[in-house]
Amino acid sequence: MAPRTLLYAQSGGVTAVINATAAGVITEARKHPAQIGCVLGARQGILGVLGEDLVDTAGLSVPDLAALAGQPGGAFGSCRFDLDAPDDNPAQFDRLFEVFAAHDVGYFLYNGGNGSMDTVLKLSAAARARNYPLSCVGVPKTVDNDLVGTDVSPGYGSAAKYLATSMREAGMDLRAMSGRRGRIFVMEVMGRNCGWLAAATVLARQAPDDPPHLLLLPEVPFDPDAFLACVEACVERLGYCAITAAEGVRNQAGVLLVEQDEDVRGHVQLGGIGQWLARLVHDRLGYKHHWAVPDYLQRAAGHLVSATDRAQAEAVGQAAVRYALAGRDAVMPAIVREGDAPYRWRIEPAPLGPIANAERRLPADFIAGAGFDLTGEALRWLRPLIAGEIYPAFFEGLPDYRPPTFVAVGKKLGPYIG
Amino acid sequence: MAPRTLLYAQSGGVTAVINATAAGVITEARKHPAQIGCVLGARQGILGVLGEDLVDTAGLSVPDLAALAGQPGGAFGSCRFDLDAPDDNPAQFDRLFEVFAAHDVGYFLYNGGNGSMDTVLKLSAAARARNYPLSCVGVPKTVDNDLVGTDVSPGYGSAAKYLATSMREAGMDLRAMSGRRGRIFVMEVMGRNCGWLAAATVLARQAPDDPPHLLLLPEVPFDPDAFLACVEACVERLGYCAITAAEGVRNQAGVLLVEQDEDVRGHVQLGGIGQWLARLVHDRLGYKHHWAVPDYLQRAAGHLVSATDRAQAEAVGQAAVRYALAGRDAVMPAIVREGDAPYRWRIEPAPLGPIANAERRLPADFIAGAGFDLTGEALRWLRPLIAGEIYPAFFEGLPDYRPPTFVAVGKKLGPYIG
Repeated sequence: MAPRTLLYAQSGGVTAVINATAAGVITEARKHPAQIGCVLGARQGILGVLGEDLVDTAGLSVPDLAALAGQPGGAFGSCRFDLDAPDDNPAQFDRLFEVFAAHDVGYFLYNGGNGSMDTVLKLSAAARARNYPLSCVGVPKTVDNDLVGTDVSPGYGSAAKYLATSMREAGMDLRAMSGRRGRIFVMEVMGRNCGWLAAATVLARQAPDDPPHLLLLPEVPFDPDAFLACVEACVERLGYCAITAAEGVRNQAGVLLVEQDEDVRGHVQLGGIGQWLARLVHDRLGYKHHWAVPDYLQRAAGHLVSATDRAQAEAVGQAAVRYALAGRDAVMPAIVREGDAPYRWRIEPAPLGPIANAERRLPADFIAGAGFDLTGEALRWLRPLIAGEIYPAFFEGLPDYRPPTFVAVGKKLGPYIG
Repeated sequence: MAPRTLLYAQSGGVTAVINATAAGVITEARKHPAQIGCVLGARQGILGVLGEDLVDTAGLSVPDLAALAGQPGGAFGSCRFDLDAPDDNPAQFDRLFEVFAAHDVGYFLYNGGNGSMDTVLKLSAAARARNYPLSCVGVPKTVDNDLVGTDVSPGYGSAAKYLATSMREAGMDLRAMSGRRGRIFVMEVMGRNCGWLAAATVLARQAPDDPPHLLLLPEVPFDPDAFLACVEACVERLGYCAITAAEGVRNQAGVLLVEQDEDVRGHVQLGGIGQWLARLVHDRLGYKHHWAVPDYLQRAAGHLVSATDRAQAEAVGQAAVRYALAGRDAVMPAIVREGDAPYRWRIEPAPLGPIANAERRLPADFIAGAGFDLTGEALRWLRPLIAGEIYPAFFEGLPDYRPPTFVAVGKKLGPYIG
């Protein structure tokens, strides 16, 4: 069989190591010239496929790929876009397969989270229905760590390392600044439905009384009285209290805390749980307060990636290519943990059926302390994921991220009117 | 003359390198045993002097001091507390000098910003008025960089490096995520009255179109129409727009933007300009939006300090000891710039009279682009301050910050009822 094109795309919220996965894909694909001809990327995920907005990676040198691997953001561009059901929008699928055929795409690798895995499943089924020969492989990525079927998702370990470092450092500032009146600090982290990122900040503790003193997780309905009692007890004891709050904390009725109140203009306060909680504590207990919202910073911190996470990100990219070449379809390279200390892991293919659109929340046996803390088991699971440092090159005091120069692939089709 | 006690204390908002100054003070002081006996620290700044809450640094080994130098936060504890005017509260000054006399303090070094320099001036004058032999030296420190009399303040360079890195990294995430509808990102940085920290983020640009695209500075009254027009033009051109906003941006009437509106509970929205601006853009232009508030993280990032800043922080600590020993009083070691490229600097004593309570804002010739950008002169001034990396030791994936164990000094006086 003549070599066919491998097409790679990035989808969903990006991570500090998703480009390491891209570099892994490209590097591995180049090792198989008999089976893989062009290694193309789509701009902005599946939208780039629909728009035939493709780039060729052939011009990237080995140093270019090394630079790409160390770069945060998604170098190909990403999207949040779900395909329609094939029966609802056959024209959409017609277009996708016109693009695949025009560029002889035989391998499609989609690097994303649980929604992206649904896209892979739909394309896989559509290819079979059309008798179009295509290996569709999902490649895991999400700072939220909410993918089922894998012990951990690439991207999570680096965000976890960044947030735990930030909590440790901000906690030292808080301690220095806490005066007689008491002071609290809230760090609002990502996690609409899952507390994995919030949980990671517990790693910040070097001693039992170190920050964070309280976790607010989406998995645990918020009880304001219990929360305030714990904050007050902590401030009475230490003079200060550091709180990690997932953005998706909900009240007993399942409503996001920040959607309980509306402001004068009728807006729901999206985000802003850090401020909301800080104000609640100030109003009820009178403490001084600060809050931080790292937002994009927590998933883009290329200057502080976990070497473990980055190795896994590269490995899933390489494995995905091998799975595609082996004709595996509708699978995802999953990380299997073989041991905690020393940490050992391997990669195995996982079928996408149970993964697509499913959501993995913090297990109950990870949550302790009336819902405000973690168990030792959670810490044993977390600790190895943030291990190891890989620093980017610096130039003039800053990480030197030079985006790769992609060569656009000439369009063979007309524009897509979606 | 018999050796006398040197007393050091930290005041105001702490920085990522204030402990490097402390280590510089202690290391230098130990070189002069004929003149300096004990090297004590006060807990929580001048409050620790009033409370006779003192610690002895004699037990710190050389490795302990090296660890201290790499640690963010203020290891001695800080405070925001202004002394009264001596005539208004003579009892306060009586107490301070009782504590000085009880511990034979001959040298007092106060590490802080412009308010702290006022404390030094008051103590200096009171010592002269009482014929108490005391050298009072201010030691500069502030991430806000608003101290006059010095080219730059220790603490600023590291916060600048952190914020510029964060903007570069978050900007790459933003670029990857910007879809057809346009997307904006606002990073809210510290700076109630001065735009120095906001300005530093301009260093993030590697190419002219790189983030940040707009700066909002406290020095420039906010013009919503001009701002929105620039945001729209940027999104039309690039698909996205990154904005750095100082927390202290004010409208044409001089009112903080976030104090213009009140929420349903009658609260002024303190902080939150990032959210406020993101919402304004969303309401008026319809773009998707994210905002970040690094808060404490920007001044506590020991994992990403500027080697230049850290060297200066140590140097001012050492110089302050030498000034005290030379009998200089009511001075501050100031950093004098000798050249931009290569960057050269030296330290000179600056009298505190013009420094105390004065505020240094961004000069007009640093501000360009209708107030939304910086001049080349500003960039020439900024660039060397963030140069060089010094990483902390890591343990289990996180910076290993072990707070020094301080030995409390036995109290010789009764409690202070302030």
